[in-house]
Amino acid sequence: MEKKFTANLNSNSKRDVYGNKTQKLLDTYKVKIGDNVKLLSNKGDYSGIIMPRYESFNDDYVVIKLKSGYNIGILVENIIYITNENPSETSVNTSLLKTPSKYGEPFNNFVQSKENDYIIDESLETKTLPKILLLSTGGTIASKIDYRTGGVTSILNASDLYAIFPEISNYASIYPEFLLNEYSENINPDHWSIVSERISRAIQYEHFDGIIISHGTDTLHYTSSAISFALQNLSIPVVLVGSQRSSDRPSSDAFTNLLGAIKFITKTKFTGIFVCMHHTPSDEIIACYLGTRVRKNHTSKRNAFQSLDYIPFALIDNSEIICNTDLKKINKRDEITKNLISKTSFDKRVFLLKFYPGFDPAFLECFLNLDYKILILEGTGLGHINKNCFPYLKKLIDSGIIIFMTSQCIYGRVQMTVYDTGRDLLDLGIVPLSDMSSETAVVKAMWALSNSRNASDLIDIMKINLSNEISNMSPLIS
Amino acid sequence: MEKKFTANLNSNSKRDVYGNKTQKLLDTYKVKIGDNVKLLSNKGDYSGIIMPRYESFNDDYVVIKLKSGYNIGILVENIIYITNENPSETSVNTSLLKTPSKYGEPFNNFVQSKENDYIIDESLETKTLPKILLLSTGGTIASKIDYRTGGVTSILNASDLYAIFPEISNYASIYPEFLLNEYSENINPDHWSIVSERISRAIQYEHFDGIIISHGTDTLHYTSSAISFALQNLSIPVVLVGSQRSSDRPSSDAFTNLLGAIKFITKTKFTGIFVCMHHTPSDEIIACYLGTRVRKNHTSKRNAFQSLDYIPFALIDNSEIICNTDLKKINKRDEITKNLISKTSFDKRVFLLKFYPGFDPAFLECFLNLDYKILILEGTGLGHINKNCFPYLKKLIDSGIIIFMTSQCIYGRVQMTVYDTGRDLLDLGIVPLSDMSSETAVVKAMWALSNSRNASDLIDIMKINLSNEISNMSPLIS
Repeated sequence: MEKKFTANLNSNSKRDVYGNKTQKLLDTYKVKIGDNVKLLSNKGDYSGIIMPRYESFNDDYVVIKLKSGYNIGILVENIIYITNENPSETSVNTSLLKTPSKYGEPFNNFVQSKENDYIIDESLETKTLPKILLLSTGGTIASKIDYRTGGVTSILNASDLYAIFPEISNYASIYPEFLLNEYSENINPDHWSIVSERISRAIQYEHFDGIIISHGTDTLHYTSSAISFALQNLSIPVVLVGSQRSSDRPSSDAFTNLLGAIKFITKTKFTGIFVCMHHTPSDEIIACYLGTRVRKNHTSKRNAFQSLDYIPFALIDNSEIICNTDLKKINKRDEITKNLISKTSFDKRVFLLKFYPGFDPAFLECFLNLDYKILILEGTGLGHINKNCFPYLKKLIDSGIIIFMTSQCIYGRVQMTVYDTGRDLLDLGIVPLSDMSSETAVVKAMWALSNSRNASDLIDIMKINLSNEISNMSPLIS
Repeated sequence: MEKKFTANLNSNSKRDVYGNKTQKLLDTYKVKIGDNVKLLSNKGDYSGIIMPRYESFNDDYVVIKLKSGYNIGILVENIIYITNENPSETSVNTSLLKTPSKYGEPFNNFVQSKENDYIIDESLETKTLPKILLLSTGGTIASKIDYRTGGVTSILNASDLYAIFPEISNYASIYPEFLLNEYSENINPDHWSIVSERISRAIQYEHFDGIIISHGTDTLHYTSSAISFALQNLSIPVVLVGSQRSSDRPSSDAFTNLLGAIKFITKTKFTGIFVCMHHTPSDEIIACYLGTRVRKNHTSKRNAFQSLDYIPFALIDNSEIICNTDLKKINKRDEITKNLISKTSFDKRVFLLKFYPGFDPAFLECFLNLDYKILILEGTGLGHINKNCFPYLKKLIDSGIIIFMTSQCIYGRVQMTVYDTGRDLLDLGIVPLSDMSSETAVVKAMWALSNSRNASDLIDIMKINLSNEISNMSPLIS
């Protein structure tokens, strides 16, 4: 089944062909797309595979995929010499490099049944690689530069992604599927339900060893939280991956994040909802976070995501995976005895309100005339808000709105018994949410509102730890 | 002027006297409050000064101030032996350990003129120590445990603080003044004006080498931002300090933060608005942040504050102060040629709105019926918000509301030309605020609204870098 990576992978796509100038250079050195080469240039020496040309590039560059997975574009003018290395060293399995029937040719090792579902036909399966369902929802990992505007738009689907990163076929059989095509800022609770239901169906009726969801990074942590509540007792790992650079840019982190997720799925036994993103700006270490304990903390860095705990759940590098199993309740595949819980509905009547000095307490009266059931306050420090708000909060509570307290500090635990402000808020009936982030809290509240019998039940659900959204560790006071 | 630290410092306060059990132990070893001792206990050996008993302690503890400034309570039962070390080694200047006339006896080296103003009478001044005005506004640094409720309430004033930490008189002559007594969650823009006006008066008519403001930590970074806009071209440094542990607790960080601020004022030449807080959980290093580039990122840790840049402006330890002068425009005292700009008014008609998935776009219509002039959006990632909000945002803009974009990522720069969502928002007229934090942005907007001629002027003010609120560094894309 192992075939040499060859240029015909991309033969049917005009965008992949290099222009005259670059092709002439490649011909001079008798190398072609897919060849493993050493490239000597004015700016440095590089070893890797010649990649298809990206649409976002003009004809001045040759794109090389380095062994790290990082793609680099080298200006033709700077290239001094290219040598063709032994191609067998970097051969990759291209047997799966076709798109499913909905978008093109079907894979040869599965048959598609009802819409979007893959029933793996074991008789057709000739390899023993783990099987991973790759669901694309849009975002940078599935985006490329739009020439008309100069910005980035989401166009690539999962199949394109798979074609761009053929090396992943050495680790697993990937079953790409185009589920949504939304920037993550446009993802809403209805999309959370769609994704959760698709995962639920895959777990119950299909036979994958894991699921990867490619997702825009902006709200990736909201979605990972949402799935963490919608689906419980998972028998396989579900890993969300994003990219801070679009897949067709040389500096893209898409491949390394995706590969990290594949390694985590195939080389560990953990189940649940996770997020795999760069741990450092370089490509060396990928961090794996718990779906409810992660946050996008930087607008542009590759290592934009950070754990809400002092360390991520796992660190993945080329040689090993280090898991911090002392972190809360994480199940392994053979430990799952209960059936999958699948409650995929969300109720949007939840408002997240960030407090700030100068906030007009009278603003709270708006909520008396709107159809909100829950208010998540993002207070200051240990869970405080200006005392002038107290009478208004009381009015809201009297009207039946349930109010929860989180902290805008991001890290640490809400503790409302330390100061009299906190105790006064508790007396009003405001419920503190420990070290749940405000982002996870708003998602959990939407889920709890849709999946509870009454207010008391809802408050109980919010206060207990369902999916590691509340840390069991003693407060990190130091 | 150097006097030995003696117990009579606290002789007029009943709370400072140890009870029979502990006093008997101290008598046995012929040591008293103020003595420098070595204490051998079952739990470890300690060297330091015996401190007055704190009201929050029962009679089972002896409180020792360690050389680090950290106070520790040692259970009487655990004490094996106490030896009286040479007291002269740790003698402290207690000449200033009296309270100003408003609250008790005046200092002997200044005369009080009009209310709250200190005119330093040089003829009475016998020491050459730098003069620092210490303004107390309340918060944990000026708080202690309330026995009735078990929580922490703000009771201590600046004079008390000064009495608790007499060592500071070795570094500077401190002029404590009780300006406000508010928890920081209750501090509002009117308080920002009061504090700014007091600083302005001190700079123009009094002769201090620096000003320290003790402030509750919850909104300390909002206040430091506010003063940074209200006062510009400062001829002296103004440093805000807070404490994550109340001053009368053995683990209080109040002293070390205060001492860090004093060292920064007396040992460097920088002017402007700064914040001094723990850099690490231990007492070894105090970080000094720019007033507009700092955020409280942990609810309870001593090192709760972090720079919005990759490093704080300065690090202060026992032996040296390392300043990162490549960070933006920081003036030195001898470089100030312009007069103080003092514009201390704020207009509260600014709303900070944090976006989240599931946010109902129709909620934005509320603002059509309310008297808000500015909306600060806390978008996702590079400055994005759900496309369903666009028509509503347009309505608000058409109604005259000015909308600015920041990011809930905290770190990094809003860049709205990368994705089509951002470009669409720019087309609507939404103004990106680069790497200004949403907290600093809401404060600057309140200030700009009160200090601009019209909308165009206001937008210009928001977009330019006035007080390092926008980083001049190239975007930290890595």
